[in-house]
Amino acid sequence: MIAKHMIRTLMIETPSVPGNLGRVATAIGLLGGDIGEVETVKVGPNYTMRNITVQVENEEQLQEVIAAVQALGEGIRLHTVSDEVLSAHEGGKIQMKSKMPIRSLAELGRVYTPGVADVCRLIEKEPEKASIYTTISNSVAIVTDGTAILGLGNIGSVAGMPVMEGKAALFDQLAGISGIPILLDTSDPEEIIKTVKHISPGFNGILLEDIGSPHCFEIEDRLKEELNIPVMHDDQHGTAVVTLAAAISACRSAGVDLKEAKVGQIGLGAAGVAICRMFMAYGVKAVYGTDKSEAAMDRLEQYGGQAVSSIEELMEVCDIVVATTGVPGLIKPAFVRSGQVILALSNPKPEIEPEAALQAGAAYAADGRSVNNVLGFPGIFRGALNAKSKEINHDMLVAAAEAIAACTKQGDVVPQPLDSKVHHEVAAAVEHAALTAVK
Amino acid sequence: MIAKHMIRTLMIETPSVPGNLGRVATAIGLLGGDIGEVETVKVGPNYTMRNITVQVENEEQLQEVIAAVQALGEGIRLHTVSDEVLSAHEGGKIQMKSKMPIRSLAELGRVYTPGVADVCRLIEKEPEKASIYTTISNSVAIVTDGTAILGLGNIGSVAGMPVMEGKAALFDQLAGISGIPILLDTSDPEEIIKTVKHISPGFNGILLEDIGSPHCFEIEDRLKEELNIPVMHDDQHGTAVVTLAAAISACRSAGVDLKEAKVGQIGLGAAGVAICRMFMAYGVKAVYGTDKSEAAMDRLEQYGGQAVSSIEELMEVCDIVVATTGVPGLIKPAFVRSGQVILALSNPKPEIEPEAALQAGAAYAADGRSVNNVLGFPGIFRGALNAKSKEINHDMLVAAAEAIAACTKQGDVVPQPLDSKVHHEVAAAVEHAALTAVK
Repeated sequence: MIAKHMIRTLMIETPSVPGNLGRVATAIGLLGGDIGEVETVKVGPNYTMRNITVQVENEEQLQEVIAAVQALGEGIRLHTVSDEVLSAHEGGKIQMKSKMPIRSLAELGRVYTPGVADVCRLIEKEPEKASIYTTISNSVAIVTDGTAILGLGNIGSVAGMPVMEGKAALFDQLAGISGIPILLDTSDPEEIIKTVKHISPGFNGILLEDIGSPHCFEIEDRLKEELNIPVMHDDQHGTAVVTLAAAISACRSAGVDLKEAKVGQIGLGAAGVAICRMFMAYGVKAVYGTDKSEAAMDRLEQYGGQAVSSIEELMEVCDIVVATTGVPGLIKPAFVRSGQVILALSNPKPEIEPEAALQAGAAYAADGRSVNNVLGFPGIFRGALNAKSKEINHDMLVAAAEAIAACTKQGDVVPQPLDSKVHHEVAAAVEHAALTAVK
Repeated sequence: MIAKHMIRTLMIETPSVPGNLGRVATAIGLLGGDIGEVETVKVGPNYTMRNITVQVENEEQLQEVIAAVQALGEGIRLHTVSDEVLSAHEGGKIQMKSKMPIRSLAELGRVYTPGVADVCRLIEKEPEKASIYTTISNSVAIVTDGTAILGLGNIGSVAGMPVMEGKAALFDQLAGISGIPILLDTSDPEEIIKTVKHISPGFNGILLEDIGSPHCFEIEDRLKEELNIPVMHDDQHGTAVVTLAAAISACRSAGVDLKEAKVGQIGLGAAGVAICRMFMAYGVKAVYGTDKSEAAMDRLEQYGGQAVSSIEELMEVCDIVVATTGVPGLIKPAFVRSGQVILALSNPKPEIEPEAALQAGAAYAADGRSVNNVLGFPGIFRGALNAKSKEINHDMLVAAAEAIAACTKQGDVVPQPLDSKVHHEVAAAVEHAALTAVK
């Protein structure tokens, strides 16, 4: 579900004649460039200057778009091509900040020596007071070994830092959580487990991030077992929560009863298996899955799903189909049955284009462009921390998915990911699920 | 050098008659309470309400102060006794913040998926770009195992978190550094070394903090050797830098040539040995030390210092004496030689009161009340990061001490620790020393 797009901003001057922006947009669009923001920089009496943000797949396509704009003529001029993604990352995206300025020696004496000794002694005597007088209760480690950064593979934890900083920035903005990137220099499961345990006293939650399969399973299972704080591998369960939310919305649009339906998952990587488990936890009785890997099929059956041997068979059996394979065009229109719900979530190109699926008879179809993990993890951890939960369990995750679906407008697949109301609702639902769980 | 004071704020009403504040202050002072800030809360026609911050040593002394104020009568009333130290710590003192708000889907696309993938790939190809496009180059881990928190001993890393947060807050305010507390659940040197190495990719510096002796020596030495980023144990070298600065200022006041003098250190714990090493690095030819522990004396001699067997002998031999034993009154006035410079740095009670030392003939004497580590670590790390230094060496530390001394007003022992100019000067001196070092 990972896009490999490049984003560039083109500064373009057009003579002030109606239709010129349309000509530019058409030229870009015909070459497959996706236009994002259009910002008008300057309106002169004779010409208009605009910054147009364009997503393309690669350098080659970018050059085609540039050539097409330059070829338009009639006074249309391309001034600059800039990389606003890079400039947005200059100096990094996060910083550890003091909550209040220390202005006087008296204040220094309160928040540092000698005053701080009082607080240390209090926590020594009553350890639970650490949740009041330190930031530990609001801190979540964002841990990666860099083995599965986005769809880019094993590029190392340092190259993955921009993703971890993005998560930390979103934790701050959407949930008020202090997210601390922890970049590991090892991908050995035992070393990772030991290291995370050794640094765990400073955190009230562990978000595992972009850790490859299959070692992600052992690492998450062991840390959940051995630590007394919430642990979640976002690429498994965060993705699964948002996918379940999308499926609930899609079924609502298509008039299908999800729990009674046959649900099929194409692609049983870390996310795929977690999606199957999430559907089962939600109450779907018949969950099918398929993958080229026998080990992945075995893992699905361990968790109670049913493995089928081919995509064709899965498409034949299932009412609702989710695909997360990363393989564009994998689902042929001929496989589609009338009335099916199809979520082809791979980015940037889905397993089947929604239009093609609808033409082939699907009742509802969507791709993964809007299905963003951002909808899940901030509220899930906020809710878990608010409830002082020692874990994140499937009840809490299902509650998160239902909250996201409840915030989704009719016809949409998920809500807008920056809508703070959604994160508030997710947090409240997760907190409630944690507090009402049968202990 | 650690105070064990309690700080309380007394809200006191006095009739608006001249001399009443003086009566309150006298009552508090006579019982040994130190008055810090006096804040006038309300001035009425007939009475004035003030918040008076008082430092005392323990609960018993606090009760005596309270009783004395209550006994003043004549309309003087004590309204509340509040613990502003605790309230200043509520919710913790630091938080990881996003540097900029993410306001639109276009911005989300730049700082998170899909845009972020571009930055990840760039760093994969050109790893040195991580210093531009991530916060790693500005991040320092503040690592403790909780075995020697302030003067409180082995109270555990969680109970030490208020100190680590204080350091992080000061890093932010005084040096713009992102300081990340890392609380360890182990005090085994091998495990600590391995854990810090495993999480080191996310940091450009390691501040070791409140780690007990003797394992602090091995941990620091090994990490310096095995990591390619600055590593410093603050309780050793941060303390030593500020002590050297104080000694330089004291010698300037007393007209003594420090480098040609005989310098003695009483107490050879982690700080004491580091102070001896710092004097030697500064260029002092004759450095003596004494301690009850044979192992400590051996360690001093390993580093090139001369062990002497008693305090009396050290006092007899040395022109400049530094004490960091934590034992009040250890230096008898009879030991003091005429013209000596004495820095008795233990808090809250020095080894000899400055007045007593001066009366006994010392040319200059100071206690440790103002000798605060805060003067050192922020600028030292800022300078090391600015220089992209791979280490913090003695040249850099001596440069820091000289910069602090240069900022000290004649007659003072050190500058005011919140003066941003001092930290700027320290950073510049350390950066310069790092860049001009013989490679």
